[in-house]
Amino acid sequence: MDAAQSWSKLPLRKQRRVERMAAFADGRVLRPDRIVAALEALIEPGDRVALEGDNQKQADFLSRSLAEVDPGKVHDLHLLISTLGRREHLDLFERGIARKVDFSFAGPQSLRVAQLLEDGKLEIGAIYTYIELYARMFVDLTPQVALVCAEQADRHGNLYTGANTEDTPTIVEATAFRHGVVVAQVDRIVDELPRVDIPASWVDFVVEADRPFAVEPLFTRDPRHINELQILMGMMIIRGIYERHGVTALNHGIGFDTAAVELLLPTYGESLGLKGKICRNWALNPHPTLIPAIESGWVESIHCFGSEVGMGEYIRARPDIFFVGSDGSLRSNRVFCQLAGQYGVDLFIGSTLQMDADGNSSTVTLGRLAGFGGAPNMGHDPRGRRHASEAWLSLMTSKEPVARGRKLVVQTVETFKAGGVPAFVDTLDAVEVGRKNGMPIAPVMIYGDDVSHVVTEEGIAYLYKAEGGEERRAAIAAVAGATEIGRRAEAKRTADLRARGIVAFPEDIGVSRLQANRSLLAARSIDDLVTWSGGLYDPPARFRGW
Amino acid sequence: MDAAQSWSKLPLRKQRRVERMAAFADGRVLRPDRIVAALEALIEPGDRVALEGDNQKQADFLSRSLAEVDPGKVHDLHLLISTLGRREHLDLFERGIARKVDFSFAGPQSLRVAQLLEDGKLEIGAIYTYIELYARMFVDLTPQVALVCAEQADRHGNLYTGANTEDTPTIVEATAFRHGVVVAQVDRIVDELPRVDIPASWVDFVVEADRPFAVEPLFTRDPRHINELQILMGMMIIRGIYERHGVTALNHGIGFDTAAVELLLPTYGESLGLKGKICRNWALNPHPTLIPAIESGWVESIHCFGSEVGMGEYIRARPDIFFVGSDGSLRSNRVFCQLAGQYGVDLFIGSTLQMDADGNSSTVTLGRLAGFGGAPNMGHDPRGRRHASEAWLSLMTSKEPVARGRKLVVQTVETFKAGGVPAFVDTLDAVEVGRKNGMPIAPVMIYGDDVSHVVTEEGIAYLYKAEGGEERRAAIAAVAGATEIGRRAEAKRTADLRARGIVAFPEDIGVSRLQANRSLLAARSIDDLVTWSGGLYDPPARFRGW
Repeated sequence: MDAAQSWSKLPLRKQRRVERMAAFADGRVLRPDRIVAALEALIEPGDRVALEGDNQKQADFLSRSLAEVDPGKVHDLHLLISTLGRREHLDLFERGIARKVDFSFAGPQSLRVAQLLEDGKLEIGAIYTYIELYARMFVDLTPQVALVCAEQADRHGNLYTGANTEDTPTIVEATAFRHGVVVAQVDRIVDELPRVDIPASWVDFVVEADRPFAVEPLFTRDPRHINELQILMGMMIIRGIYERHGVTALNHGIGFDTAAVELLLPTYGESLGLKGKICRNWALNPHPTLIPAIESGWVESIHCFGSEVGMGEYIRARPDIFFVGSDGSLRSNRVFCQLAGQYGVDLFIGSTLQMDADGNSSTVTLGRLAGFGGAPNMGHDPRGRRHASEAWLSLMTSKEPVARGRKLVVQTVETFKAGGVPAFVDTLDAVEVGRKNGMPIAPVMIYGDDVSHVVTEEGIAYLYKAEGGEERRAAIAAVAGATEIGRRAEAKRTADLRARGIVAFPEDIGVSRLQANRSLLAARSIDDLVTWSGGLYDPPARFRGW
Repeated sequence: MDAAQSWSKLPLRKQRRVERMAAFADGRVLRPDRIVAALEALIEPGDRVALEGDNQKQADFLSRSLAEVDPGKVHDLHLLISTLGRREHLDLFERGIARKVDFSFAGPQSLRVAQLLEDGKLEIGAIYTYIELYARMFVDLTPQVALVCAEQADRHGNLYTGANTEDTPTIVEATAFRHGVVVAQVDRIVDELPRVDIPASWVDFVVEADRPFAVEPLFTRDPRHINELQILMGMMIIRGIYERHGVTALNHGIGFDTAAVELLLPTYGESLGLKGKICRNWALNPHPTLIPAIESGWVESIHCFGSEVGMGEYIRARPDIFFVGSDGSLRSNRVFCQLAGQYGVDLFIGSTLQMDADGNSSTVTLGRLAGFGGAPNMGHDPRGRRHASEAWLSLMTSKEPVARGRKLVVQTVETFKAGGVPAFVDTLDAVEVGRKNGMPIAPVMIYGDDVSHVVTEEGIAYLYKAEGGEERRAAIAAVAGATEIGRRAEAKRTADLRARGIVAFPEDIGVSRLQANRSLLAARSIDDLVTWSGGLYDPPARFRGW
């Protein structure tokens, strides 16, 4: 008995937790009005708590409730969270409920993270790319408690996530199968679910939230804000990268540069005869700016990390394009889409705010500990890849018998940010931020040696062709415009790089600067997108101009 | 109506398939005696069919049935399969039922794959590492049909995979949410499942197989076959790598070298005072040779790709160690364990059969198209990683402000294979195999520039410390023994490399060759492992020596 028990400490600990919760539950259904007391009964000091919160959906009923527990009872928690996105996430540290955090992204709260760190109220385990944080949940950061969210549950505990499946199955699996306790907030408890996204076998308790879970329309870009520099860059990307390398499977990040590309496909792309030849299979969220390309027949498939507010009915009406369940609504999955974005597509493209002379870049700037999100996982050459494609092979420069291709990792950057601040710098702010915060390495988002192409409004640097670090730096300088880095470019050297195809200016790839204006965009407003969608796209109120 | 239909071709196609199956089904339950006719009704010529078969479990009732369909009705299929492991997989090509295949591993059938390729009866899309093949199932290789297996189903279609969850949820998700049809063979249909691993919402049909699904005890290594060279290498690995770099989270592949390490932890490792300091969190299958280390208190957690035959009761009795469900049996998951092995652990170690002078290696040899399995995904430096650990940082050699750490990728190789064939060669057989079969790149398993350490019976080459390709080659030559590559090592150069810590011989790291004998192993037979397990480990008959 003793011997057996010594191998069952974790299941016994779980059993005691579940028993303590019984006072607040009817079967698996928790009483919403007793949620704070229930969390106090459930969570023990020092627990590793996985709190669902990514850059889109948030288990906000549970996070708000957690922030109300008595720090005398629940304290020093170790929080595992994709995105420190809400005020109360930081209140947890302010109040001493949590002490340590492992996370991926802290966009809206990054200033406060830096402040709490300085005040000694918050300790960072590490900052990750999403998929890497989940990986550790199966190794040494297994959660004792998971607080997740879904749209609906039945009374047995089966969950329907609806379109925002996102991280939920991963967090639940890491917790449920390691004797952790899984609590799911749901918008409502129903008798029959439209489909089951997570089986009741993996869920301990469900609770009806006070209001629908919070979700950000993060991937909505209003075409009105796309400027002519972005259109020029978009044209260069289509001609100088997608067409040249035959890119059929790709990921697009958030940003007006890539929104411009999406809106140029049915116009500029069509005029080049590229439909069906590029941009067929996508790993990305249901960007509203992709609607015109979908409607014009460019897109074969889209697999999504998460959903996007207002895209539900459109997705339901386009089942040939999206991954959907038998109920007709989207099935997203962040881990599988990250895998697709890492190993299954040929191109990652993302915008950056700051790049050094070697092509390293980061969104971490002084005083801001923003983190990484999904970019590092997709923005590197996955060296475990073994399958070839036309695009991947086109980056092979070596003649060695064991040579291999390479992923296209494209960084776009306008040479100057708002206010005339140069985007190209000698040393990334991230280096200073890392040093100041005692981080073991500088928080670089994308490393220069992983970048294959840099695109600015000046031109494209085909870095994968550069021989050695010195030539890479010359190629970056050649497209860095009037920044100090750019002014180091020598005209003769740049001419040589252009002649050798390592640098291209718009005219070198047949892109006319004069053509780069907003009339080229397939949609110039949110209203245009709604029209393209046949009225199916239902933009959030803040994006409505009418 | 027309317009709506044009966006619903895939769901309509699925609906027609499901309707055709009705004749052979009672609800979701297919008649086993009509399975061949049912598959003929379901599958259309040219379909992409994901057939579950990895290096462990196999949907063999379905694969045997598929091999019996009329090639006049079902032909030119595009097979997506992890492991071409069974005779009937190749019969599909012989009979013209299938034409093209994307796969990861073909160990037992690799000779026949090469032959069918030469005969023009089989066409290879590409050869992948597991996780990369799944990634493409969410991009451009979405399956129209998935044929998978589980232990039990209920009549609604909920599945219980038991300990061998493995690839099933991934294949099913890629198919079910893209209007593919999912058919699961199960050992039996029951009223109530011990737990639900895959919800019925994702499954179209279940069928009771004629016998329990096939599963290979692939990860069982009989300690009787561990020789003294492997013990010597194991001692070097523990002292020269695990202790030196403080490796706490790791993966072990299949092999007698790593089995030796596992069996040396409770003896040699204990004598060095390393318990609790190294080898705590594992991403690997439930290797029987890990039982003594578990029983001795070395192991905190093990997350598994799949299960292992005979380990069920032992796992059930050790819930603190393994990931298990509420029913007490293992929950494995190949994708999550590959993620853990890629991003969540600090070390991958694997044996190889052939290595070139630059450290490139492959198990593809002349006439054998074995493929890759999971090794490339874990056996590379994951450049998307952003979190630091002691072990990872210990490989940082640069002082640059944006320097980062590195994963330990260890390759073990005895300098000569059976029959006196040198393992070190000037050119990998894979180069010739690739050329002969018209492959776009040579099928290299692990690339030399990803390898941080090479271990032979001669010593360890710390390749991550070598400056430049020439020094790497010298370090490899220094441990390549009496092979031709090894004879190129110059004594003076080797002395310099040893002085600089780039090469270590056993005596340099305090490992005594004399001590390297079988008495050091914590278990010297399968019987010893059973004893260690308190009789809970139940080895397959073929491993029983008594």
